[in-house]
Amino acid sequence: MTKTVAFLGPEGTYTDEASYLYAPDADRIPFASLALVTSALETGQVDEAVVPIENSLGGTVIEIVDFLITSKKAQINGEILLPIDHCLITRPGVQLGDIRVVMSKQEALTQCRKFLARELRFAELIPTTSTALAVVELKEADDRTAAIGPRRSAELAGLPILAHGIQDRQDNVTRFAVLASNGSKPTGNDKTSIAFDFDRPDAPGLVYGALRPFADRGINLTKIESRPTGKGMGNYIFLLDFEGHVDEQHVGEAIAELKKFTSTFKVLGTYPIAQGLSVR
Amino acid sequence: MTKTVAFLGPEGTYTDEASYLYAPDADRIPFASLALVTSALETGQVDEAVVPIENSLGGTVIEIVDFLITSKKAQINGEILLPIDHCLITRPGVQLGDIRVVMSKQEALTQCRKFLARELRFAELIPTTSTALAVVELKEADDRTAAIGPRRSAELAGLPILAHGIQDRQDNVTRFAVLASNGSKPTGNDKTSIAFDFDRPDAPGLVYGALRPFADRGINLTKIESRPTGKGMGNYIFLLDFEGHVDEQHVGEAIAELKKFTSTFKVLGTYPIAQGLSVR
Repeated sequence: MTKTVAFLGPEGTYTDEASYLYAPDADRIPFASLALVTSALETGQVDEAVVPIENSLGGTVIEIVDFLITSKKAQINGEILLPIDHCLITRPGVQLGDIRVVMSKQEALTQCRKFLARELRFAELIPTTSTALAVVELKEADDRTAAIGPRRSAELAGLPILAHGIQDRQDNVTRFAVLASNGSKPTGNDKTSIAFDFDRPDAPGLVYGALRPFADRGINLTKIESRPTGKGMGNYIFLLDFEGHVDEQHVGEAIAELKKFTSTFKVLGTYPIAQGLSVR
Repeated sequence: MTKTVAFLGPEGTYTDEASYLYAPDADRIPFASLALVTSALETGQVDEAVVPIENSLGGTVIEIVDFLITSKKAQINGEILLPIDHCLITRPGVQLGDIRVVMSKQEALTQCRKFLARELRFAELIPTTSTALAVVELKEADDRTAAIGPRRSAELAGLPILAHGIQDRQDNVTRFAVLASNGSKPTGNDKTSIAFDFDRPDAPGLVYGALRPFADRGINLTKIESRPTGKGMGNYIFLLDFEGHVDEQHVGEAIAELKKFTSTFKVLGTYPIAQGLSVR
């Protein structure tokens, strides 16, 4: 049976691109919101879901972390690294000099500020709900209009790419998580993501103490983040990624020791470390 | 002489609201982008700047951190906490049942998803460049259109607020930083923000070791974040906030000890801990 994979739609978004590169032969189903993606997974309507979890510019996608903390079934069982490559997409035959309007998600417009200021100084910038939608709307637009979006959105729409890599920072990478209801077996090159908080949030040395079980066992941390939960910016949840699989003995011991300090504790997933994907 | 304070405009944004509450009598000047705000500060065109630095949902605003790391002059010399209170704003006399279109920044539309699904299920959602702009555009719109924005944008436009606090999560707080070229003197209730990285990013125990100088001196950490710099998601910069002023002896000692481990090191600012502001 073909595997079904949910992703944050519409087709042509970076999440679509990541899910396509991850599982080109799966039955991939777009959902209109993160809430719908995650509920499709919870109800068993799909086998897996691909969602953005961290961006080198925008940081952690907190909705996904919140979902994983409260979910009874879903966990991360894989990760995908995708470089963000913004493309300037037009109708056929359009030249740079013709463009008076550029549409895209506000975030993408902001990330291409230097290119737009240099090459399209007089163009009006119109925000859209998603990058993919901007490209779909191009079909109805005139030749004075361009869109900024992923390569895949241009391919799906059958529209030409006038310029690519037009983002200010060439080092913009997004990390996508593959979510599923079953965990991943140890491969010898794994990573584990956990979330926790403390009973006494303000005690000096608590964070230091929480890292000791990992330092003592030579476990490499690949991410640490304290995240205000919003209750007056005083309460924090900690997100930690480290190398190793929960089924490995030294990892199990480190977690057991950490749990002596924590109040809430949740393994968000244990999964093979990503090999970066390149967009051709 | 009246103090001049730059903020991320246009007028009526949450940053305007924060800068108004912070310095109601100052000469406050809106700038169209974060780059322009920060360059006005670097060139001495303004005395201070108010910028968003951390949101309980969106996380750290990395552009500001990047700016502070590379800036030769600017540093954080104060912080402002502002609860985000999204308001549904209309033209005079409009009722909920009249509304068919809701405009706002995409982020605000997303944050009000539950209210919109419950009360305005059939309304078309139109993204705009800023929340404030959505409210300005209401003036030209018809009675079927509403905007989501801060209270201040409604007041500036002289338009009624039909509902407020319509965001899904009531605990959405934004932290704004006051940037200036001079530091802040010790008040006895201060906080310091630093950024650093390591020579050898992958060595286990490095982060743990870096926190030891603070734990040893009973210095309370209020934020820790490792942030991928985007170079393949492998290189990290660490952001740390802790209680205390750099001029206090135990803080100076902790920093000197930390610097033995770090490659890049920068004090982003040392400033009085914020008292939360409430929006009436």
